[in-house]
Amino acid sequence: MKITRTIHAEDMEDIAIGGAILGTGGGGDPYVGKLMAQQAIRKHGPVKLVDVEQLPDDALVVPVCMMGAPTVMTEKLPQGDELMHAFRQLEQLLGRKIDAVLCGEAGGINSTTPFVVAAASGLPLVDGDGMGRAYPELQMVTFTIHNVPATPMVLCDDKGNSLVLETVSNAWTERLARAATVEMGGSALLAFYPMSGATAKKAVVRGTLSLCAKLGQTLRETRAGHGDPVETIAAMLGADIIFHGRVGDIERRTVGGFARGKAHFDGVEAWKGHSLRLDFQNEFLMAERDGKVLVTTPDLITVLEAESGNPVTADSLRYGLRLMALAFPSNPQWRTPAGLALVGPRYFGYDVDYTPCTK
Amino acid sequence: MKITRTIHAEDMEDIAIGGAILGTGGGGDPYVGKLMAQQAIRKHGPVKLVDVEQLPDDALVVPVCMMGAPTVMTEKLPQGDELMHAFRQLEQLLGRKIDAVLCGEAGGINSTTPFVVAAASGLPLVDGDGMGRAYPELQMVTFTIHNVPATPMVLCDDKGNSLVLETVSNAWTERLARAATVEMGGSALLAFYPMSGATAKKAVVRGTLSLCAKLGQTLRETRAGHGDPVETIAAMLGADIIFHGRVGDIERRTVGGFARGKAHFDGVEAWKGHSLRLDFQNEFLMAERDGKVLVTTPDLITVLEAESGNPVTADSLRYGLRLMALAFPSNPQWRTPAGLALVGPRYFGYDVDYTPCTK
Repeated sequence: MKITRTIHAEDMEDIAIGGAILGTGGGGDPYVGKLMAQQAIRKHGPVKLVDVEQLPDDALVVPVCMMGAPTVMTEKLPQGDELMHAFRQLEQLLGRKIDAVLCGEAGGINSTTPFVVAAASGLPLVDGDGMGRAYPELQMVTFTIHNVPATPMVLCDDKGNSLVLETVSNAWTERLARAATVEMGGSALLAFYPMSGATAKKAVVRGTLSLCAKLGQTLRETRAGHGDPVETIAAMLGADIIFHGRVGDIERRTVGGFARGKAHFDGVEAWKGHSLRLDFQNEFLMAERDGKVLVTTPDLITVLEAESGNPVTADSLRYGLRLMALAFPSNPQWRTPAGLALVGPRYFGYDVDYTPCTK
Repeated sequence: MKITRTIHAEDMEDIAIGGAILGTGGGGDPYVGKLMAQQAIRKHGPVKLVDVEQLPDDALVVPVCMMGAPTVMTEKLPQGDELMHAFRQLEQLLGRKIDAVLCGEAGGINSTTPFVVAAASGLPLVDGDGMGRAYPELQMVTFTIHNVPATPMVLCDDKGNSLVLETVSNAWTERLARAATVEMGGSALLAFYPMSGATAKKAVVRGTLSLCAKLGQTLRETRAGHGDPVETIAAMLGADIIFHGRVGDIERRTVGGFARGKAHFDGVEAWKGHSLRLDFQNEFLMAERDGKVLVTTPDLITVLEAESGNPVTADSLRYGLRLMALAFPSNPQWRTPAGLALVGPRYFGYDVDYTPCTK
């Protein structure tokens, strides 16, 4: 298998920053996943990143991820062992060797957790994921669009408990895994969506891990040089800068395990006199500028610090912060009727139709 | 294997009544389980009841039961198929043929559900159970006292979802299975506590299914003849009749999935001028007469209609009903320190020590 690139412990810094940019305000803290990945790479050696096209059609590919509340993960740092345990238990259940590791989501913490398993197992990691961003529920992956069942799925906790799920739909997998995760203390480790190389070639959002690495590297290099970090990142993503402003009011409430809320921004400089409102449910899902809907899920809304270009999560929005909001198109798979049924604005309870963002 | 007796569809009437008596006011509606068992026996043939001593030491014995809220079970009648599915999935997981079926609890609905699996599989059913009564949580079985792990456990719902649990303790099995059951709509079907014949001989509360049958038969025959149903049942169980009275106030609340409450009785006839209070959490767990604690869990408190001797659940207590309360000793395994740690009054939050009831 031709290796696209080799990822060393120090490369995880860039990947975590890139993961936070694609995390669109949610997806959990990549810092935790970065530490786990670095520890695993230092112990077991670097990770081989491969293009999905390199996989034989009959290869067995298995995504791994963490599930649960981002805040819990930060306080209850998981050990890489539990991810490996879930991975190996699923392998045993399937009765054959797994050939490659895959990312469920490339945004947030789960852009980094699969590196733990790739390092520990020595298996290649596919350069791609099932979202091209972050989403809060586990049926919200392009794999579901391609009718890949989430089960058999193995779910482990930090205490030594494990569950094997077989469900009638990926929505049921989400419900049962969520209930177990809550009971396990708020976070759990999963191996799920086992699929063939042939299926992975159709379903995977390609190149997202090398995109994460490149976003992080570019941000770091731009800051060291003389370019404008936000403009550089926007150009790389093909994103519109939809606003520049200061955080005003923030409304937050926790509903059904989601961190829901609305953040209001007051324009500065070119956007003086204008306003922006971002609605979030973990991730930023809708942007209204001057009272008009401008961008909705599945397109990506990302918030960066105006000076440094550092990504800012919905959780860390604070009054007075000067930020810039970017919007860019989602993977085309999300823009189909099947994709919109899974992650369109109406699924999240917003009474608006999806209108593709300008680019 | 020597068969103690053969159970036909019509025998299930008596067993269900007996199960309700041992259900001590909770344990779910045996009527539902009776219908399931009768349907299975009519389809597959009668059930062979065997004494636990008949099992070879290396036999594989598996208990099955329903989990969930009694009221939900009545509204959402399960099919026998789901129980068989859980049973067969556990068999496959264990990689060897199961030799006999076992009851988890002999009180309430689960005194009858194992007949479904015994009939459909053609396997013998052990005459005994893991409680000798009903209790609300799945670690509350004599098997736990004997360090039998509840897992691997298979949990199925009526939609086709299933879970395999591996847990670090039986208390964790309860927590995770409870969360899944709630998510599945309030009831689920389990196969769990796989154990050897040798272990079963130590752990099982013996003879409880034939006791159920005998209680039901005796009640039926006494009513047809001239004896006093309540006195006859009390004599059979070695029970004290601790009260005769009418239901007065009832306080009910639902806490953490339990139907908790207190029922007050005003004495009649020999008990005129006296009062009784029964505390329940699904089951009747404590009896106070004239303000003094008289009986607590694990000893059994059962309420019968004064005239007919029919068992009355906590759920169906209504103002003005004339009832008699019986108390009788639990299986000796529950009266040990290990037993009391699992099901003693303090586990249920009552600030009293267990004092063995008089007999």
